[in-house]
Amino acid sequence: MNSAASEPALIGIDWGTTSLRAFLIAADGTLLDKAASSEGILHVPDRDFEAVFDRCVGRWMEKRRLPVLASGMITSRNGWIETPYAQAPLSVDDLARALVGFTTNRGTEVHFVTGVATEHTSGPDVMRGEETQIIGASGLDMSDGDFVLPGTHSKWVRVSGGRIVNFATFMTGEIFAALLDHTILGTLAVKGPFLRKGFDLGVAAGVRDGASLLHDLFHARTLPLMGRIEGGMVADYVSGMLIGAEIAAAKARGDATSEITLIGRSDLADRYEVALHAAGIGTKRAPDDIVAGGHLRIARSAGLIA
Amino acid sequence: MNSAASEPALIGIDWGTTSLRAFLIAADGTLLDKAASSEGILHVPDRDFEAVFDRCVGRWMEKRRLPVLASGMITSRNGWIETPYAQAPLSVDDLARALVGFTTNRGTEVHFVTGVATEHTSGPDVMRGEETQIIGASGLDMSDGDFVLPGTHSKWVRVSGGRIVNFATFMTGEIFAALLDHTILGTLAVKGPFLRKGFDLGVAAGVRDGASLLHDLFHARTLPLMGRIEGGMVADYVSGMLIGAEIAAAKARGDATSEITLIGRSDLADRYEVALHAAGIGTKRAPDDIVAGGHLRIARSAGLIA
Repeated sequence: MNSAASEPALIGIDWGTTSLRAFLIAADGTLLDKAASSEGILHVPDRDFEAVFDRCVGRWMEKRRLPVLASGMITSRNGWIETPYAQAPLSVDDLARALVGFTTNRGTEVHFVTGVATEHTSGPDVMRGEETQIIGASGLDMSDGDFVLPGTHSKWVRVSGGRIVNFATFMTGEIFAALLDHTILGTLAVKGPFLRKGFDLGVAAGVRDGASLLHDLFHARTLPLMGRIEGGMVADYVSGMLIGAEIAAAKARGDATSEITLIGRSDLADRYEVALHAAGIGTKRAPDDIVAGGHLRIARSAGLIA
Repeated sequence: MNSAASEPALIGIDWGTTSLRAFLIAADGTLLDKAASSEGILHVPDRDFEAVFDRCVGRWMEKRRLPVLASGMITSRNGWIETPYAQAPLSVDDLARALVGFTTNRGTEVHFVTGVATEHTSGPDVMRGEETQIIGASGLDMSDGDFVLPGTHSKWVRVSGGRIVNFATFMTGEIFAALLDHTILGTLAVKGPFLRKGFDLGVAAGVRDGASLLHDLFHARTLPLMGRIEGGMVADYVSGMLIGAEIAAAKARGDATSEITLIGRSDLADRYEVALHAAGIGTKRAPDDIVAGGHLRIARSAGLIA
């Protein structure tokens, strides 16, 4: 591994709302080093993004400057610089052409991967950061297909012919938190370990024909009130119902095909796996750190590395 | 009006979570006096319900004791006494038979109207207090039909053959508040007067075939982000979408017939009227204070007044 291919060639940064992950990447894709920080864009002291940048990746450029790609909410209105959205459908080359350059006060050039927009009949949709993960995943053996990125705002992304053709956002994670913390549904919920039975009941309720969240969520109150489920199951029941409703809506949109690639290694992704299987949809899992593969592919297409 | 029919015959109390309304009722239904308090069951100092009771209605019993009926969340777990639910379908006579008597420390007999439960394929549903309003409304020229009581938890109630045959709860109001106050949807919302255009757009989105709240709510972020609706419309857009989704779900359940009787005189009831009309459903409005009519009918059936 002393070949030139394993020399540092690129720094990739995935800078989100609540955290930052950085990668020192060789030309062959080997990850030579990693860094992580909780200084997401909402937690950058004095909005001094360059100081966070220097702390996280500065040591990797002590010998020589490296090209830097940054993706994620860092390009949003509350980020370091705001970049316009590129319009789907788009390929890795389109994303490379849309890179927005920026020179830091210390003279380092940072190439920002811009976010992506699409248009549904119901209205516009946007993402920042997920497109780079998808480009990373689609550089593996998973070039075409449907991808789900569970999270605060989960994303369903369709890749076809090597292009991101469309995607949809579901506010599932954020709505779950608001319901449990700020409505009556939290009052009968008892904190505890994950209870699969509560989750499964919730998924079944969420995917049911004729399901209606505004009504069905009330059962997360009536069922424990009548002693039919335990308080320890309430949160898992609500979680299952919301994820089930998300899957049912994606199916109705034609986005839930026979197999989904799940991106992310969180407990949440495990829950999506369970729920997708219950809905008769197969899953595979993308490896960790695929976002760095996305940085590499976009940088290559932009001619930033050999 | 000096006839015996206009003498005080009954005290009716509608005692909810956040407020209390009391009525001094004549045998012919005339309302001789009213009282109101913000001491709903969650705001009763030291849980001394009898003190609140005495302050609100004590003066009406200085000359002589009167029968007292109380309905609402006052019979819930956090209320004065907890009563079991009566099972729908039920009539005014069934509610009269299910009254739960209670003698206060000062020796006043209070008859509590118990709440009502029903069973959907999706799970159990419950209400406390709305049944008395419905009994009041159905004593007018609106005996049979579909009733909607907008609120934190709005209720759709079907009355047929003089009986409450079933009902469904929608957590619309509470979920609206949680979304605006505790998710990203609040950040682009600008407080201001009601903007009908934003509300109408939201209703259209909510009743749309293939609508999905978890996805569509994200448009309350993307539309103002892209300058397509003003920040001042965001809250009305979300409100319209939720009420629209509630109406669509009620339609799918078969609960939204050609005409709905709206109960309540709030701004919220006005919004439901607009949304129901947009969905092609006619409305009429129940008069104020119909709950007192419910108290009277139940008391009569129970033989508490002549």
